[in-house]
Amino acid sequence: MNRGKLQKNLNHRPWFRLIWQWQGSVIPSILPRVFACAVFALGITIVYDFGINIALPLESGLVPSIVLGLLLVFRTNTAYERYWEGRKLWGTLINTVRNLSRSLWITIKENDSSDRTQKIATLRLLVAFAIATKLHLRSEPVNEELARFLPEKCYDKLFTMNHPPLEIAFWIGDYLQQQYEKKCINSYQLTAMFKLLDTMVDVLGACERILKTPIPLAYTIHLQQLVLLYCLTLPFQFVDELGWMTAPIVALISFTILGIEAIGIEIENPFGYDANDLPLDQICYTMERNIEDLITLAPCVRYLKNNLSQ
Amino acid sequence: MNRGKLQKNLNHRPWFRLIWQWQGSVIPSILPRVFACAVFALGITIVYDFGINIALPLESGLVPSIVLGLLLVFRTNTAYERYWEGRKLWGTLINTVRNLSRSLWITIKENDSSDRTQKIATLRLLVAFAIATKLHLRSEPVNEELARFLPEKCYDKLFTMNHPPLEIAFWIGDYLQQQYEKKCINSYQLTAMFKLLDTMVDVLGACERILKTPIPLAYTIHLQQLVLLYCLTLPFQFVDELGWMTAPIVALISFTILGIEAIGIEIENPFGYDANDLPLDQICYTMERNIEDLITLAPCVRYLKNNLSQ
Amino acid sequence: MNRGKLQKNLNHRPWFRLIWQWQGSVIPSILPRVFACAVFALGITIVYDFGINIALPLESGLVPSIVLGLLLVFRTNTAYERYWEGRKLWGTLINTVRNLSRSLWITIKENDSSDRTQKIATLRLLVAFAIATKLHLRSEPVNEELARFLPEKCYDKLFTMNHPPLEIAFWIGDYLQQQYEKKCINSYQLTAMFKLLDTMVDVLGACERILKTPIPLAYTIHLQQLVLLYCLTLPFQFVDELGWMTAPIVALISFTILGIEAIGIEIENPFGYDANDLPLDQICYTMERNIEDLITLAPCVRYLKNNLSQ
Amino acid sequence: MNRGKLQKNLNHRPWFRLIWQWQGSVIPSILPRVFACAVFALGITIVYDFGINIALPLESGLVPSIVLGLLLVFRTNTAYERYWEGRKLWGTLINTVRNLSRSLWITIKENDSSDRTQKIATLRLLVAFAIATKLHLRSEPVNEELARFLPEKCYDKLFTMNHPPLEIAFWIGDYLQQQYEKKCINSYQLTAMFKLLDTMVDVLGACERILKTPIPLAYTIHLQQLVLLYCLTLPFQFVDELGWMTAPIVALISFTILGIEAIGIEIENPFGYDANDLPLDQICYTMERNIEDLITLAPCVRYLKNNLSQ
Amino acid sequence: MNRGKLQKNLNHRPWFRLIWQWQGSVIPSILPRVFACAVFALGITIVYDFGINIALPLESGLVPSIVLGLLLVFRTNTAYERYWEGRKLWGTLINTVRNLSRSLWITIKENDSSDRTQKIATLRLLVAFAIATKLHLRSEPVNEELARFLPEKCYDKLFTMNHPPLEIAFWIGDYLQQQYEKKCINSYQLTAMFKLLDTMVDVLGACERILKTPIPLAYTIHLQQLVLLYCLTLPFQFVDELGWMTAPIVALISFTILGIEAIGIEIENPFGYDANDLPLDQICYTMERNIEDLITLAPCVRYLKNNLSQ
Repeated sequence: MNRGKLQKNLNHRPWFRLIWQWQGSVIPSILPRVFACAVFALGITIVYDFGINIALPLESGLVPSIVLGLLLVFRTNTAYERYWEGRKLWGTLINTVRNLSRSLWITIKENDSSDRTQKIATLRLLVAFAIATKLHLRSEPVNEELARFLPEKCYDKLFTMNHPPLEIAFWIGDYLQQQYEKKCINSYQLTAMFKLLDTMVDVLGACERILKTPIPLAYTIHLQQLVLLYCLTLPFQFVDELGWMTAPIVALISFTILGIEAIGIEIENPFGYDANDLPLDQICYTMERNIEDLITLAPCVRYLKNNLSQ
Repeated sequence: MNRGKLQKNLNHRPWFRLIWQWQGSVIPSILPRVFACAVFALGITIVYDFGINIALPLESGLVPSIVLGLLLVFRTNTAYERYWEGRKLWGTLINTVRNLSRSLWITIKENDSSDRTQKIATLRLLVAFAIATKLHLRSEPVNEELARFLPEKCYDKLFTMNHPPLEIAFWIGDYLQQQYEKKCINSYQLTAMFKLLDTMVDVLGACERILKTPIPLAYTIHLQQLVLLYCLTLPFQFVDELGWMTAPIVALISFTILGIEAIGIEIENPFGYDANDLPLDQICYTMERNIEDLITLAPCVRYLKNNLSQ
Repeated sequence: MNRGKLQKNLNHRPWFRLIWQWQGSVIPSILPRVFACAVFALGITIVYDFGINIALPLESGLVPSIVLGLLLVFRTNTAYERYWEGRKLWGTLINTVRNLSRSLWITIKENDSSDRTQKIATLRLLVAFAIATKLHLRSEPVNEELARFLPEKCYDKLFTMNHPPLEIAFWIGDYLQQQYEKKCINSYQLTAMFKLLDTMVDVLGACERILKTPIPLAYTIHLQQLVLLYCLTLPFQFVDELGWMTAPIVALISFTILGIEAIGIEIENPFGYDANDLPLDQICYTMERNIEDLITLAPCVRYLKNNLSQ
Repeated sequence: MNRGKLQKNLNHRPWFRLIWQWQGSVIPSILPRVFACAVFALGITIVYDFGINIALPLESGLVPSIVLGLLLVFRTNTAYERYWEGRKLWGTLINTVRNLSRSLWITIKENDSSDRTQKIATLRLLVAFAIATKLHLRSEPVNEELARFLPEKCYDKLFTMNHPPLEIAFWIGDYLQQQYEKKCINSYQLTAMFKLLDTMVDVLGACERILKTPIPLAYTIHLQQLVLLYCLTLPFQFVDELGWMTAPIVALISFTILGIEAIGIEIENPFGYDANDLPLDQICYTMERNIEDLITLAPCVRYLKNNLSQ
Repeated sequence: MNRGKLQKNLNHRPWFRLIWQWQGSVIPSILPRVFACAVFALGITIVYDFGINIALPLESGLVPSIVLGLLLVFRTNTAYERYWEGRKLWGTLINTVRNLSRSLWITIKENDSSDRTQKIATLRLLVAFAIATKLHLRSEPVNEELARFLPEKCYDKLFTMNHPPLEIAFWIGDYLQQQYEKKCINSYQLTAMFKLLDTMVDVLGACERILKTPIPLAYTIHLQQLVLLYCLTLPFQFVDELGWMTAPIVALISFTILGIEAIGIEIENPFGYDANDLPLDQICYTMERNIEDLITLAPCVRYLKNNLSQ
């Protein structure tokens, strides 16, 4: 909405304010680990202070440093790509719902008023598909949110199914085939609408893919081992040079590293309720509003024609 | 237009001139922060000059440096990809408008002169769709710019709608379905044109996606925290070696870093009015000119045939 | 399923636990090589301890270090892209099976009860295609797992074929063409379903591509040579500074490097039985369950209509 | 053609020869700037030699170095992607011309010999489209090169148009629609050919996009400022260590950096006449030859049939 | 085939064996240059040993090092992408041949036995297309390999053509159009098969693109100049520290750098006969075997029906 203004704000005022923002940042989840690193560094400093030489000059390990740095960025990229792919999929879902609803509304002939009622019910099924997908991705059961968009009988039936969105897709397809058999649409229109319906099911499957296939475990384990090793060797490298400043500096550096990794974990599954997850509720609401707008639309051209022909 | 010349110029003369260009660069927006960093560095130098040893040798933090460097580039890449995707989408919109208008103009049969008037009105609706999308992306209300391309009644109606471009798409679809029912196009042609219309709505949805989904907040916050930490630790690292040169050098380095980040923020939303945003007005004007050209075209082959058959 | 919970867990508790996880990590496969590097480093240290100066200051080789680091990450990226492309392909297979089965179930007219039996048999052929593809990718022969989804005669025939999935695709196509000739579907529906069948065969071919085309041998050899050279030169660089700590430090660094390379090798072929491979058995089971759900479905809208029309 | 040989040559002999190649390299365009850097470095050395201590130890600026390095590579990647996308688009244009010409030649029925003449004229229009696109991308007016492929009347008309390729596309579409109305092709074939024509117009639009949308100005300015700053601070860093060798070393390093940037600028617009631009003339000639080959082809199968049926 | 086993082997035994593999590695082609670098380094060492101080401390050139490292990796990525795109294209060709042959075999009606003969001849033309493409990409003339898959008359004609694969595509298209005119397929099926044929020609064009458009010359030249400069400055940097060890160390480092570059050159054109090129012969053989399998197939469902209906 007023993003133009937001954009300007991001350029000027809130730069220094964003830095202190707690909500939506990963600080809460990494603070304990940063604190643990600092305590460990303090321990090392105390031991060193007693004269036990445990300082290690490790600067030569250039390749491990590059590898760790690049792996962290690989993690970041991969997680962000999953997030962005998820967003693209939901964008596709909005587009497809818009296109399919417009086609439905324009092309299916109405012979009596019950046809229009059925048409509107089917338009609402499109929104129901999106909401059922959202619930499915969040592992939530069918609930009241869906009730508004489904005929009562269908709503009851959904409770007994393993995979609610697929059943809704089945009902939409069934309605289209029925219209085709009633000669309200021709077979090309049927095929085109089936393709849009297929796209909706493709989006569902792709979201399930993102949800169910995290980054291979071997990467996650190896990366966490490297991060831990790195954070634990930091005090040995710094204690000689920095003395009592070792603990705060180690805290800063481990904050940098652990933060990156934590963000990766947080946005890897973008379908949840976190502050950084996709605004699925809002997207579903946009679809609903678009459909409701469409229903209130009396097409200007056709309207005239219909008035003339009647 | 005379880009060939521009290209040559870029190779030779303006290299040194571009460097001093103020307009379009991010210098205005980052100057206050660069200045703040320099002042801070000066403060540190003064404290150090009083003999208080606050110098810190931090060169060992190779991994945080790599991570910060790569994150800044990740930010740059991501922002540029959004910018370039936005440009691609508008390119797709131009192509689709060209293809759909050509198909409309060539294939829809005309029985009387009012058919042609209606056809021309629909071609202009395509431009209206692009302009309405532009206004929608800039959160601007329906305005005079659209009036030229819309029948008056439609223009008035648009003021009452939530989502003007979708309504225009609805009118175009409605016109096509009407032609199909009047047997002026067959159902294959209808389906093909509906697909092009779907593409136009897909472009609209994808632009909304870019606009409404910035980079996850957690990244933005973490990156800004790292940038701030880095700039604030710079004087401690340099004060011992550089003395009174610390402040200008810190200003230079923070200029480098803050500039990258500011560019990312600026081109992340490419649909605004900034010097670095997409030239949407010009793109819309290109569409308009192409449509007007098309309307003045009398197809050479068909023209002969029509003359013969009449 | 309860991934929402898992996600939360990943944020809090299991961070430190994951690090010690043996199963699924690459430690077992690289441990011998890490040990060999450590022993070599120990040997170098002993020789050095006898006063033979074999220390080499090699820090200047910045470009080889960058190249090795980036090559390792290139390896990682490439292997992960293959893994993720494999997952996407199986996701496409699920989607296509869902779409094709829904279309089949909704659109093919039934004249008598044997038609329905044949329809169900064909739906099961879709699952059989997926399972046959899985077995083919694992170089396993046709086995009992397939028997449930195939008519007995077809099952027997499969044993004599070079490429079982292609034959199953042929049977599905043959069934569709037969329905078309019996006028149970029209030619548009036939074409649309053939396209979905083509997609299934495309997935098969793309999986074979991933399986049969590893990263070019020249890269693999060059990378392994560089890794070996790097690990063998490490002790010479460290022995002067670290003394008897050389061996454990070299072990740590070679663990980092060899681990990355081993993960690359492990996930390059994602169709096997490793802990890090794709869960193909589970994916096939999902398809089976979706198909069985579909078969039990009595479409609500059509059901009414059929009752009325009968 | 004899690229196999070329490939071999690249492996063996010309390695050392390529290095000295002047034509096609960016040396001519960057030499003045490299020379300027060397002179500046010499000046600094002379000043230093007079005992004025202007040496600055700047090695600690790791992050700016990484950022500059990665930005240069970002520039390189982006420019190369534009180049490669341009090449892909022209590849698509060749493919589409081949497919559309083959379809035209095979499927359009001929009733009398004038039909064949018209068919051949339309095939040549496809080449004319490619050439007109080339001229349009180079901002050149319609010229003799096009005359061979266009009917005279069309050629004259093109001079009056803003956007020649679009008009040629219009004529091709018009011809197809005419054949459809003459029942020489059916509506499916018409739709399929229209889609190929749409692809050709998509290629045109995408090339215009590459041409008209350079990398955002803010990046170009910021990058050039960083490059200049870097080159100007080099002598201060080196003068203490290298003495009179400073100037040649600075020349070498600035040669590296400026070369990368100059290549980026040169291939960013790949449609010109530079040695590194796409061989558009040759690509157009390939299309022409393919079309002329096609025209001389008498299909073996059909030929028999026609002989039999006549 | 027994890749599962190979995979296991790669994990365990052959790790140390791969390192010594000569065939398929780039060692043969870079050995002379590595040797030249070592000799140059030896010369520098001898000169230095005579007391002439030519040592240069160059470690400060961080940006050129990063740029060279990243450029080498850019080269690697680009070359690998071309290789992988080539492999994908041939995968697409296999898939399309499978889909088109299955469609042909299932859908084209046979009225007499000559129809079947012609059908089989056309299936073999698909393999001929792949082989002709392979020969074309290797700049080899039409040869005996093609004779088996072509009618004699066509084979003779191919010798006179500039672009054999395009002519074969023309014959396939011609056959399909002929079947359509004989009412053996309907127009939807014709359109769908034409689209698959278009895909085959697209693959051909895309392979030509990869073959004929190497990385822009400016990059190749600049990269080789940088590599040479880097290798020649290495001895000056090392001679002070390493003494007589300079030559072997320089040889190792130049081996690393030159190897990367040589791999890039080798896999840039993946259609040749090198050990690292794509196994085109094997891919063509797979297609042949799939087609021959298909021909021997008597569809189980249809077979019954045909038996019943006859």
